[in-house]
This record gives sequence, structure tokens and C-alpha cells, in this order.
Amino acid sequence: MIKVGIVGATGYAGQQLYYILNNHKNVEVKYISAHSSVGVCISELYGNYSNIIQQKCIGMEGAIEKLDEIDVVFLALPHGTAFDLVEKAYKKGVKVIDLGADYRIDDAKSYETWYNVEHKNPELIEEAVYGLCEINRDKIKDSSIIANPGCYTTASILAMYPLIKHGIVDEKKVIIDAASGTSGAGRSGKIDNLFCEVNENYKAYGVTNHRHTPEIEQELTKACGSEVLISFTPHLVPMNRGILATCYGFLKKDVTHEEIKAIYEEEYGNERFIRLLDTFPQTRWVRGTNLCDISFKIDERTGRIVVISAIDNLVKGAAGQAVQNMNIIFGLDEAEGIDNLAMAP
Amino acid sequence: MIKVGIVGATGYAGQQLYYILNNHKNVEVKYISAHSSVGVCISELYGNYSNIIQQKCIGMEGAIEKLDEIDVVFLALPHGTAFDLVEKAYKKGVKVIDLGADYRIDDAKSYETWYNVEHKNPELIEEAVYGLCEINRDKIKDSSIIANPGCYTTASILAMYPLIKHGIVDEKKVIIDAASGTSGAGRSGKIDNLFCEVNENYKAYGVTNHRHTPEIEQELTKACGSEVLISFTPHLVPMNRGILATCYGFLKKDVTHEEIKAIYEEEYGNERFIRLLDTFPQTRWVRGTNLCDISFKIDERTGRIVVISAIDNLVKGAAGQAVQNMNIIFGLDEAEGIDNLAMAP
Amino acid sequence: MIKVGIVGATGYAGQQLYYILNNHKNVEVKYISAHSSVGVCISELYGNYSNIIQQKCIGMEGAIEKLDEIDVVFLALPHGTAFDLVEKAYKKGVKVIDLGADYRIDDAKSYETWYNVEHKNPELIEEAVYGLCEINRDKIKDSSIIANPGCYTTASILAMYPLIKHGIVDEKKVIIDAASGTSGAGRSGKIDNLFCEVNENYKAYGVTNHRHTPEIEQELTKACGSEVLISFTPHLVPMNRGILATCYGFLKKDVTHEEIKAIYEEEYGNERFIRLLDTFPQTRWVRGTNLCDISFKIDERTGRIVVISAIDNLVKGAAGQAVQNMNIIFGLDEAEGIDNLAMAP
Amino acid sequence: MIKVGIVGATGYAGQQLYYILNNHKNVEVKYISAHSSVGVCISELYGNYSNIIQQKCIGMEGAIEKLDEIDVVFLALPHGTAFDLVEKAYKKGVKVIDLGADYRIDDAKSYETWYNVEHKNPELIEEAVYGLCEINRDKIKDSSIIANPGCYTTASILAMYPLIKHGIVDEKKVIIDAASGTSGAGRSGKIDNLFCEVNENYKAYGVTNHRHTPEIEQELTKACGSEVLISFTPHLVPMNRGILATCYGFLKKDVTHEEIKAIYEEEYGNERFIRLLDTFPQTRWVRGTNLCDISFKIDERTGRIVVISAIDNLVKGAAGQAVQNMNIIFGLDEAEGIDNLAMAP
Repeated sequence: MIKVGIVGATGYAGQQLYYILNNHKNVEVKYISAHSSVGVCISELYGNYSNIIQQKCIGMEGAIEKLDEIDVVFLALPHGTAFDLVEKAYKKGVKVIDLGADYRIDDAKSYETWYNVEHKNPELIEEAVYGLCEINRDKIKDSSIIANPGCYTTASILAMYPLIKHGIVDEKKVIIDAASGTSGAGRSGKIDNLFCEVNENYKAYGVTNHRHTPEIEQELTKACGSEVLISFTPHLVPMNRGILATCYGFLKKDVTHEEIKAIYEEEYGNERFIRLLDTFPQTRWVRGTNLCDISFKIDERTGRIVVISAIDNLVKGAAGQAVQNMNIIFGLDEAEGIDNLAMAP
Repeated sequence: MIKVGIVGATGYAGQQLYYILNNHKNVEVKYISAHSSVGVCISELYGNYSNIIQQKCIGMEGAIEKLDEIDVVFLALPHGTAFDLVEKAYKKGVKVIDLGADYRIDDAKSYETWYNVEHKNPELIEEAVYGLCEINRDKIKDSSIIANPGCYTTASILAMYPLIKHGIVDEKKVIIDAASGTSGAGRSGKIDNLFCEVNENYKAYGVTNHRHTPEIEQELTKACGSEVLISFTPHLVPMNRGILATCYGFLKKDVTHEEIKAIYEEEYGNERFIRLLDTFPQTRWVRGTNLCDISFKIDERTGRIVVISAIDNLVKGAAGQAVQNMNIIFGLDEAEGIDNLAMAP
Repeated sequence: MIKVGIVGATGYAGQQLYYILNNHKNVEVKYISAHSSVGVCISELYGNYSNIIQQKCIGMEGAIEKLDEIDVVFLALPHGTAFDLVEKAYKKGVKVIDLGADYRIDDAKSYETWYNVEHKNPELIEEAVYGLCEINRDKIKDSSIIANPGCYTTASILAMYPLIKHGIVDEKKVIIDAASGTSGAGRSGKIDNLFCEVNENYKAYGVTNHRHTPEIEQELTKACGSEVLISFTPHLVPMNRGILATCYGFLKKDVTHEEIKAIYEEEYGNERFIRLLDTFPQTRWVRGTNLCDISFKIDERTGRIVVISAIDNLVKGAAGQAVQNMNIIFGLDEAEGIDNLAMAP
Repeated sequence: MIKVGIVGATGYAGQQLYYILNNHKNVEVKYISAHSSVGVCISELYGNYSNIIQQKCIGMEGAIEKLDEIDVVFLALPHGTAFDLVEKAYKKGVKVIDLGADYRIDDAKSYETWYNVEHKNPELIEEAVYGLCEINRDKIKDSSIIANPGCYTTASILAMYPLIKHGIVDEKKVIIDAASGTSGAGRSGKIDNLFCEVNENYKAYGVTNHRHTPEIEQELTKACGSEVLISFTPHLVPMNRGILATCYGFLKKDVTHEEIKAIYEEEYGNERFIRLLDTFPQTRWVRGTNLCDISFKIDERTGRIVVISAIDNLVKGAAGQAVQNMNIIFGLDEAEGIDNLAMAP
């Protein structure tokens, strides 16, 4: 059994992680930590566990103390709050899978600019592997620190990676228009996230300056070797879960549907969590799953291509991919614990 | 492997059944039938199965022809449409689990009055067992035909059964006020069920004459031996899934919280799918599960008791309970295939 | 022009009031107050006013200072927070219309028990008139302080008042099962009211002890002269607005539909804001309006009657009724400013 | 009083029109027509009118017969179903305001290609004026036939018109990513529009081939004199009303925020229904109104600009703009009957 700790277990991503890990046959959750709920039983916060699971939350201090008891620690925290823990875990040889942003940006300065916080151990960024499993699988196997990708990032990169890598679209003119369910905004008591503020509304936010922008550009730039420039606009949808990314590329040359199809098949044909569809993705068909549905359409009239991807922001966009990373690191079946399909409606 | 057929597989209850049975380790789904989608692949209707499950629908005729290939047939059809199939299955020794209403009412005349249709094989009603597992488990084991309870019925009976059976409340003055998610209205193209008609709305329907009324009264009457009279009012909630039943009883005598608690524990203390809670049930905590959450509160001021139960209308209220019945009949672990908890949010 | 001040203008009820009063041709809103947004322009909080209305919030102190400039002050505050203001307004002869609970309960002790706060000026309770317009219109005309009824209260009393007053149902056995949209929970940053916590969920709360209970009993008791006992259970619906009250009465004697219809016509036949329907009310048809839709059904089988009423919790259940009260007090057309119908969908 | 007829009065756009016109002080609605509800009272379909408005629907034949009794006929019908009526109205001098698509596309052949139906009176296309009020106001005054713009079209053109007209962005590289509430899908009983299919889902549709594409390109092309090429992708949001268009342009040269602001002010500074905002538009702030909220942000990093607009698809995107057109034609205050703000929440 792999022994794990979850730090930040009571937010939406953290509890999704707890949910998955509790059903993972090779895992034992040794502790869960949540600074605002120390001593509170998880079932008091999440009634789905009532009468069945009674694990209590500990604090950050306890989480650090108990590093010796675990093989891997998952972090589902706001950025900039776990530098110390990561360093201690790393030194003890405890694998770190960080669902936050602290180790995603290769350049510490850029991180500090976008996230407006000082990076306390920039030397560990080099140790970290960007945990987008389908693209970095080999590096992940031997990693000590996983920078688990952001939700929008996962949907966006997976959609555009084949086109960028194969030089199909102008990498200087990519546009990604995406929308997310409200769980992406987290589980804190902000007026903006109240039911009455979100329901019957649709809005953009973070226009031109959302923090997932540099992450997407960084990874797509690696794919093609030339600086990629994207416009990224996230929107908030009155639903709990799901991300849809609608991506636009300007074709560098004439290509056929079959040629593009072949490229996606080449990159993703063997991937268990990517479904290349002939219809357009809908968030409901991947809800609660680790799947990423992708399809595309060439617009010959305008010389462009539209690629659409759908994921569950809490699963493939957070906790599910974190477990997928763990499975890779520990040599398990990559789909262990995350092999379910969506339940409808 | 138990070989099963599903007739009416593309409605919301039918596809929930298909979803569960596809994940049931002791089951092979030999065929699915849907009169309006003959030849259509289930993944064209439910994109959650895309690229993964390719089973095609057959018609009612085919479903009858293939009875020889299966051990049990599940029916998820409108009432009055499967008399012929049930008769043929019964004669061939194929177990029948009917999610519809045709065999729930003991008295054929009463059925015909409430459902406004002629019963074609009333002699089979006697053969049928009312499949409320927690109450009729022993009879279910040896049954050939299971009349799987209605969704409101399951929530209502489970809530009030202990109080009625133990003579705690006046059986002539029961009131059950319940509310359901919209999947309970089925998957047909009615204007009343359009998003814009249901969203941002709350309404009662079937006031004093909903068809689940005689079913609830019949089973509660059996529990206490005296005719039970209920007022039952269902409501429609703008959400996909879930039923909450708020039940009111007039106490026949002074009782304490502990006494009532003991009665519920006596009846349900060993039930895996009933959770007796100290907080009030919410539909989200049982969503997607076969659980029934129950709690109660005595109102000393008025001499009454309020009991609240929550289920997922498509699972414990339909497909999940059908599978629970199958598990009982075939001697499997009763929770096989339906042992999951709710995913939040 | 009637000069008004609104204290607590940025909560959901307060802003509804502001919306209505801004469109009221006989009213000038002299000031709005909100302790957490002093100096903030209302359009920064409510973007519907952007570029059009620029009024800034003042604080409680300012609201008291400026009492001399207004004819009537509306309070949309939590209970127990405006005793001082009310007293000062009363002494200055400024009419008070209080959307909160402080002057609704005739007995100060009972108030203190249910609301868990000391009443600072119980002598003013006697001065206050319970502002349920259809029932207390005459008293309202000459009142100085209006205790504007609660939202659930309005729907519940209007539904049952004719039956109770005319001795049709057993006043000791009334049951009221009601449900509300989420704006009823207010506009504060509580986790329980986040979109992801409310959406796809339905729950009861305040079971047997909701604070609207004594208010309903008090007013219905006045109607029949004998103590009325109700069970009242509110529920939370994933929608923004609306209350539906499903009320159950045990008939004292045989009555016909026509007899009951006549009683409702007698009580409400001339009321502009009550619509007696032949179909069952739905919250959407009164959304954004000051209407109360009511219909009933006798259940001869069980000797009971079900009455269902629907209102908009923020309008007839709060701000609209407050304006209706103001219109009565100032001798205006009772429907001035609140004469719109619902917009669908 | 202007005497009007509404043909197609029971769909979502038609009833919105009816709602507005019933409150318009210069209008008398002489008849409403709806082929599937002949003889049915509007309040049976829309309970908001219960007990208050009793107008009955007539059929298409009656609508044509009664042309002599009206000054203007509004059409809220599917495309291709009212050629005959339009011709007869035109000949009789009855003004036509068509909310459908039949007279929007200048080139009949193009219409026939995109809409897959034969145009029966292409000679009338020339008579028709494209009724985007803010841009074509002068022509509208003297028109006989108004081709009222589509919902997505209105939001898209208003957002991009100033930039295209002033040559700020590359007209060959425009991308418009938009999302709509579900009322845009109409009020017919399609499974795709059921609550359970739309709720908790987000999807794109009509990718690269939505019928509003040629309409947007046509009008923007007129604005700059050079062919405009857009990629347009609509999405479906689980809400009733609202459209948000997120538009991307590649800047032809360096411009400052102030320069762009000045251009928008120049074009729209005096428009009563356009609000130029400093924050980003949200659909809720224009819900139920004829307003179009617009704001923009220059992305210097990528040399692009993002413009976001929000409207209510049924009001400014359909019925409200139709009334605005009528007001212009008949020389009324342009905001008569459509001068309300959004009600929140």
C-alpha cells in the first residue's frame, strides 16, 4: 500500500482527491490536513461520508511532522503556502504532488511576477516535473516533485499540443477561449461565488492576465521550439464542474481533415484518458472522470482550425491527474482508481 | 456471469441501470432495447460511453426473442407496455425486475383506476414481490417477478415504515411532502420539461392524485395492519437528480428522541444502504448512490414528528434498487455494483 | 414626492427595495445606507445600475443624522440591529417600515426567546402594525411603524387565513411545507450559500424551529380566536427567487369546492395582488412581482385540503410588500411602483 | 395608438415581444397568432398573465386577414415560413418587423445556401433595412420592412463595429466566441433542450457553420468596405437568458486604451442602450433589458484586443430591438416601453 497524506483536503480539489484515493485499491490515506478545520471530521464537511468515513483533519504542523509516515504527499493549497513543507518532504524522499502553481513555472522570476509572491526555494523548480501525463510521462516516472497542471492548462495544452508540435498552426496567433464550472473558484465564502451571484449569469474574468496563461505558453513553446503567444480568456459557467476550451489556430498551410486526424491519432491514439471524438465535446460526458475529450474542425473558408476539448476541472484538471501521476511514479496501472465513466444525467 | 437484458435502456432510469450493470463484476449485459432507437449505438445517445461502449439497441420484438439468452430481464418502461414480455419471461423462467408500475398494486382494479389502463395478466400480480429490499428481503430471494418500487415511494415508505409499524403515529393522518429532480419526469421531448420551463421554478404537481399514493398507502398499511391514509404532494426541483421526502406524523403518545432512535435502529441498524443521521438529509449527499439518508425530529410543542429522507431517484429510487434486488435474488453481496458514495460537489 | 431612506440597501431585500423605489414615481430616495460599503457607489455592487445610477452608501450614523430629511425610513437589516434608529425615527415622526423581525412578535419575551436577543424598546411593539396589507390594511393606514412580514410568513398566512378564519380546518393540525429560492439566505459570504453547495441540491432546514413559525401562528391565531398550531418546514431550492408554500388542513366538516372557492373570493376577490387560480401556482409566474398566487384542492378521500401559494420572496415577501405598505400609509394607489407582471422565461 | 399584430406570439421571442408591447403606452396589440395554439388563451401558456390578460391566439390565415386592422406586424417565426404574409403586408402598407432571418442576408442565393430554403420574394430583400438601430437608425426611419438582427449578431456586431469601421484590427482575422442562454434554442419539445440535458453542461455547437456567421460578416464588411472574415463559435449555457460575446482582434498598429475608448465613445457615446463599461460585462446586469454592455482590453503582450459585449438574447437580441425599431419608425421616444433596468438577483 502506498501511504499518502493530503494537505488542503477540504477544498473542492482536495476533497476530490480524497474521494479518489479512498477508492484506490493501492492507497492508504494516512492523514488529511486542513488549517481551518483541525480536529473536524471530514464527514462533517462532506455529508457524502456520513456514517462511513470518520477521518479527522490535522494541521500543517502535523502534516509536516508525519512526513515520515507517508510515501507521497499531495498538496491542494493556494499558491505560496507550502514552500516549507515541499522542501522538507523533498529532503526526506517523500514524493510531492503539488496541485498548486508553485513549481509549474520554470522561471522563478516569471512566477513571482504572475503570482505576486516570493518563491522561497527556486532551486526545487528544477527538480519538479510538469505533470501533464500524456506529454511528460517518461520524466514523471523518475520525478520527486510533480507540478500538477492547472485545470484550464490541461484542457488547453492537450487540445493544441499536436497542432503546435507539428507546426500546423501559427504559434504566434493562438486564441483559447475557455469556460469553467464554479468549483474552479474554490470553496471559500466569497460573495462573488454565492449561488445568487453565479446562477443565471455568464461572465469572463482574468481577461488577458489569467495566471494559467504563462503555463500554457511555456509548455506549448517547449513543444514547438518557438515562442508561442496565446490569448486566453476564461469564463464562469453556472454549473458545478467542467471545463470546455475552444481553441482557434490559423493554419500555416492547406491541410485535410484526415491529415489532422492522423496527427492527433499519432499523439494520443494510445492514450486511455484522451478520447478523439467526431462530435463536439460536452462537459457532461466527462463529468467526474479523468477523461479529456477532443475534437476539431477545419474552417476552409477562413483558413483556420477550431479545436475543442472538455475535461472535469476537479478530476483531469486537478485530483484525477494527480492520481494519474502517482500511478505513473509508483509503477501502477495508470488508470487505477480513475477508470470510471461519467454518470448521466 | 448473470446474463441480463434491459428493455427501455435509453430513458434516464434505463441508462442508469445500464451504467450500473456495466460496472457490475457478475453481470453481462446481453442486450439493450429501446423502441425509438433500434439500431442506434448507446454512445450516440449518451456521450459518456463514446469510444468505449458500442452496444446497439434492439427492439421489443428482439428483446422477447432473446429471452432464452438471459437470466433476468430489467424493464424500464412506461406502465402498461410490457404485459406480454413479462408473461413470456415468467413462463421461460427468466427473472423479471420491473422498474415500472404494472405489478406494484396488489389489487388489479385499483391499478386500473389509478393508471387508467387494463391489466392484461392480473394473475401475475400475485407472483410479484414488492421489491423494497430493506422490508421484503426474504420474499425477494425466491421471487420470479420483482415490482421495483417507485422513486417517491421508496423515500416515503423507508422514512415512515418504522413509525407506522410500531404504532407511534396516527396512521390516518400522515402527510408526505416530497420533491424530486427533473430526471424523474423522464427523457421525452415535452415542453414542460424544457430547461427554460424548469429552471428558476418550483411547483407542485399531482396534488392529491399522484400515482405513487396508493403504493405508499398499500405498503404502509401492510406494516401496521390498519388502513393508512396519506396526503402526498410531489414537487419539481430545478436539479437533475434527487428526492427529498418531508414526512409529518401526529404522535399517538409521548415519546422521547431516544425511543424513536431505538426503533429506527432496530429496523435499519444493519442496513447497508440506510444511513440514520443526526443532521438533516440533503439530496447531494446521496447523489449517484443507492443510499437512503434518514433523520427525524420530534416537535414536542405540537405533538408531532417530522421525518426526512433523501435518495437519488434514479438509483435507490429506480436502477440501484433494481440491482439490489438482483443481487438478493442471485445470492450475491447485496451491495455489489452499487457500493459507491456520492461525489461532491 | 415622498422622501425615503433605505438602511441596509445592499442586501438582496434592500436592493430590491431600491430597485422598486427608484422606479416609483412618487418617491425620491434621499439616501441609502450599508455599514460594510460606506462610500461605495451602488453600481459597483450591482452592475445593473452601471453608468445610470451613482448613489453612494452612507453608514448607520449618517442614516440617523439624516432622519430629518426623510418622510419614511425602510430597514432591511438583520434583527436586533436597529432599535436605536427606530426609536429616533419614531420620535421624529418619520414613518418606519421594518423588513426585519424586531416588531413582528407581539410578545417581547417570545421575541427574545425565538431570536435570542434582548428587545431594546418593547414599548414600540405596541405601536407597530403587522404589515400584511390584505389583512391589516385599515390599521396600516394610520401606523407609524410597520412590521413588514417575513417571506415564508406572507405566503403561509395568505394561503391559510380564509380557512382558519372561517373555521374550515382544524386549527390545531395545520402543516405548512414551504420552499424558497436562495436569495432568502441573504448576501453574505457563507460557504453554505456558495453556488456549488446549493446547486444540484435540495434540503430542509430549521425543522420545527424556524423563526417564522411564531409569526405565522400569531397572525392565524388572531384570525380564528383560538390558538393555532402549525408545523412549518422550510426547504432550500437551487433557484434565485420564489417561495412556494404547500399547506395542509384537516377539514372539520364536509365542504364543497364551490364553498371554499366562495370563501377565498370573499376574502381576496377584490385584492389586486392575490390571484385565485384554478391551476397550481408556480414560482416563475410571480417572479419579480408583488403577486401572491393561490389555489386549493379538497381531498375527499382523506378529508383534507391542500392550499398552495406562491410569491416572490424578495417582492411580496419583502420589498414589494414594504412599498405596498408605504403606498397605503401615504394614500397612494396601492399598486404604484409594483404593478408589473413576471417576465418569462 | 399604434395597432400591432404579433405572428408567432407563443415562442420565447414572441412572448417577450407580447410582454413588452402590452406595457407600451402607445401600442394596442390587436391580435396574436400561433399556429399550434389557435383558440388558446395566452395565459394558459404563460401563467404570468393569469387572471389579468385573456387574449386568444389566432392562426396564420386570420393574421393575414386582419392585416387591414393593424399598422405594423411583428413576425417571430422560423425562417422561411412567412414570405406570403410579408408580401401581403408590404402591399397593404403595413410595416413589417421580422425577427426571423428571411430578409437579413442581402444576397438571396447566400440566404438559400445558409438556410437551405428557397426565397419566395427576393425582390423584397432590397426593401428591407437591417434593423440594428445604433448603426442603421436613419434608414430604419423610412423603412417598410425591418430585418431585425439575430441575437448573436447584435452582440457581435455592436462589439466589433467601431474597431472594424476605424480600421483598428485586421478584418481578416476576427474571432468571436459567444455563449447564450437556453431560451435561444426556442420553445419546442426537443430532447436536447430538456432540463436534464442542458443543466450541468456546457457545449459548443454550429462550429464554423452557424447561420449568424454570414450576417455578422455582411454587416461588418459594410462598415469597413473590405471583406471581413470571422470565426464564430456559439456555446450553450445552462441559464435562461443572456448572450456574452468575447471577440478577439489583431491590432494593425499600436494603439492606446484612450484611443480605443475615444472611438467607442464616438460611435456609441450618445446611445441610450449601449453602456461602455470599465469592468467586464456580465449577462445578469442586462437581463430583461434592451441594453448592450461593452468593454475592451488591449493585450500589448500579444498585440491583440479583446472586446466583450453582453445582451439579453430575447430583448436587445430580439423583441426589445424590434420594439426599438418600431419606436424609430413611428417617431416615438426610442426607449419607450424598453427603458427598464435589470432586476437582481
